[in-house]
Amino acid sequence: MLQSQAFIKTKREAPKDEVSVNAQLLLRGGFIDKLTSGVYSFLPLGFRVLAKIERIITQEMDAVGGQKILMPALQPKSLWEETDRWVSMDVLYKVKDRQEKEFALGPTHEEVITDIVRKHPLSYRDMPFALYQIQTKFRDELRAKSGILRGREFLMKDLYSFHADEADRQRYYETVKKAYLEIFKRCGLKAIVTEASGGAFSKEISHEFQVATDAGEDIIVSCASCGFAQNRELTEAKTGDACPKCGKPLTEQKAIEVGNIFTLGTRFSQAMKAFFTDKDGTEKLLVMGCYGMGLSRVLGTVVEANHDDRGIIWPKEIAPFDAHLIVLESKDAKESKRVFTEAKKAYDALGKVTIGKEKRLLEVLYDDRKGVSPGQKFADADLVGCTWRIVVSAKTLAQGKVEIKKRSDTTAKLVAFKSVVKEMH
Amino acid sequence: MLQSQAFIKTKREAPKDEVSVNAQLLLRGGFIDKLTSGVYSFLPLGFRVLAKIERIITQEMDAVGGQKILMPALQPKSLWEETDRWVSMDVLYKVKDRQEKEFALGPTHEEVITDIVRKHPLSYRDMPFALYQIQTKFRDELRAKSGILRGREFLMKDLYSFHADEADRQRYYETVKKAYLEIFKRCGLKAIVTEASGGAFSKEISHEFQVATDAGEDIIVSCASCGFAQNRELTEAKTGDACPKCGKPLTEQKAIEVGNIFTLGTRFSQAMKAFFTDKDGTEKLLVMGCYGMGLSRVLGTVVEANHDDRGIIWPKEIAPFDAHLIVLESKDAKESKRVFTEAKKAYDALGKVTIGKEKRLLEVLYDDRKGVSPGQKFADADLVGCTWRIVVSAKTLAQGKVEIKKRSDTTAKLVAFKSVVKEMH
Repeated sequence: MLQSQAFIKTKREAPKDEVSVNAQLLLRGGFIDKLTSGVYSFLPLGFRVLAKIERIITQEMDAVGGQKILMPALQPKSLWEETDRWVSMDVLYKVKDRQEKEFALGPTHEEVITDIVRKHPLSYRDMPFALYQIQTKFRDELRAKSGILRGREFLMKDLYSFHADEADRQRYYETVKKAYLEIFKRCGLKAIVTEASGGAFSKEISHEFQVATDAGEDIIVSCASCGFAQNRELTEAKTGDACPKCGKPLTEQKAIEVGNIFTLGTRFSQAMKAFFTDKDGTEKLLVMGCYGMGLSRVLGTVVEANHDDRGIIWPKEIAPFDAHLIVLESKDAKESKRVFTEAKKAYDALGKVTIGKEKRLLEVLYDDRKGVSPGQKFADADLVGCTWRIVVSAKTLAQGKVEIKKRSDTTAKLVAFKSVVKEMH
Repeated sequence: MLQSQAFIKTKREAPKDEVSVNAQLLLRGGFIDKLTSGVYSFLPLGFRVLAKIERIITQEMDAVGGQKILMPALQPKSLWEETDRWVSMDVLYKVKDRQEKEFALGPTHEEVITDIVRKHPLSYRDMPFALYQIQTKFRDELRAKSGILRGREFLMKDLYSFHADEADRQRYYETVKKAYLEIFKRCGLKAIVTEASGGAFSKEISHEFQVATDAGEDIIVSCASCGFAQNRELTEAKTGDACPKCGKPLTEQKAIEVGNIFTLGTRFSQAMKAFFTDKDGTEKLLVMGCYGMGLSRVLGTVVEANHDDRGIIWPKEIAPFDAHLIVLESKDAKESKRVFTEAKKAYDALGKVTIGKEKRLLEVLYDDRKGVSPGQKFADADLVGCTWRIVVSAKTLAQGKVEIKKRSDTTAKLVAFKSVVKEMH
């Protein structure tokens, strides 16, 4: 993509009311725009990252047999009354239509998915199955001060599974747990599987996927040795206490919850009368699990966990572009023209390169802007944080080379253009 | 996909309260679920079609330089007051948060996009540019009786373009018009470019893309000879009247509006003070265009325009699967086992075939259900409407063949399995 034609507007300063690092860097880098507290737009750069996260999640959910659907945000009051959550859920936005009919704006979709499933006759032969969506959720949070980590409107993946019995649900729960860890790994996050309460959803223990960072709103107590981890809400253990599993010392740390999986059991199928016909011909309640993951929160967490004082350092698989190609103007017009010609050739050639196992095309952002200083271009490239920076200038061309630098490295290399692709492997 | 494991639940009868053909067939075929009037879920089959429509639109919008973004549904009252639409737009859902702050649920995004753009310093060098999204809209329609043609919550693509002057906006308008026609063609729709009023958006003439069908809520008057077409709201001409452009007879017909493109000019940039700095250093108002297309409406229109009394006949590029492979059980258990083995082999082989210019994998829905009669399987295949139906049974195997039939054809053919792929080209 030509940067001169892209809606990528970087800023030197973040707005003063934005205290979180993720929102500051994403706003400055032109990834997002803030509409109002807790409500953000994803601009072209941010949307590219979001789409890559969405793609990873879709692949991993499909791999565990999830079938993708799309459910509505407008949800009738009557559904939420069936589960007693119309009153009990404090983050529920409520809206009346012109005919005074009341709706909730879906903060989650247990009610709607259970309603869909109960309308269809199901037998033991249909079990198990799992449906998921990637969709906007609305939660009327009292405070929204963590940038895109806790939005009032945000993008979420929610998977719901249906089983004939508890044992099968538990088996699938472990399958999804592994899929979650794979998703976070591909997004460049080190997630700690943490025991937590079932919250508003369930009385059972749930599992959170926590990423340790000072920006976290949660506190977890974990053991680096055996992997034991609990949310502060479940334990009084402190740093230095003995791990209840292996006896080694525990560590307390702040963390961001990037995913949460729940045992629903028959909580919703009972309240909403969702049955299947078992082998013996009797009607039994569906046994359910639900598995959430906030896409915008994953994106924000990646920024919290991967940045330096110059900007974002995107993990390879979700960087907005693989490479940021920069051309530097020369004072001499003729020389400048030649440099732009060579840079354009490099851009065209790089755009035809395929990489990785999938043999996808290399994605290149070409900073072809004129009248922008080298310092500004370098600063923008560091802020935007593509995996590789490639510089073409009169100086590099004098040696028949281009300069290449990994965003996460401190030193640049001069290499022949034909070696650039090899460097990126 | 194995049908035995898919959440595809066909129904013999549509709910009695559903009068539109699109909703009847989509509900019966297991494509959608109705949550409440004007609010539908897309189930796995329906979501597959929706995703294909989304992919076509994304490709064609990218091809005209559109940059994809995602804007919020929760939009502060203050923005809508700037354009005087908080009061004037009757379909606006309004919601209050816990702190009594008021929001509109976005029925469209002129306010938000103009707010984003005005926050960024723009010069003539940045012009033109175009931003688009595919996102859920909310409109409090008084009546919602056309199935997914007019939902209260629906998926829409909206593109907004920004220009230095009116001439450039007009040039781009024509470019988008061509892209729209390409999208509809790929979706199997014959769209008529129709002059209409600017509606709530603009005082200028807009252009609608109308598909002639009796399910339409609009009436258009058009000339088959020269292509002239106007919405009833602009003309009093009737069937048989002379075309004002070429003199040939006009035809009146019902039609569904599947897209609408508008000249916004400076309507929003003026109200919201959105400027760019021109070559001469002066600040000028941005000149805007906007271009809408309802994805769920396109999907519903395809059903209205492509069905028979047995079900849907999907156009090739958006069919949920290319082929519906059906295995028929035999009464003899041993023979049945052999038929299932051969059908499974066919399924595995077909799944590895690549088709089309893109060399994408052939998508096959395999009806491997046991205890379901041949009649039910054929009826389901006709209802679901994949492009090709392939049958494997003891009868076809006795001749060393399989049966293949195009959904839109009336006759089936017996061919050797190795010829099946050739048949599908």
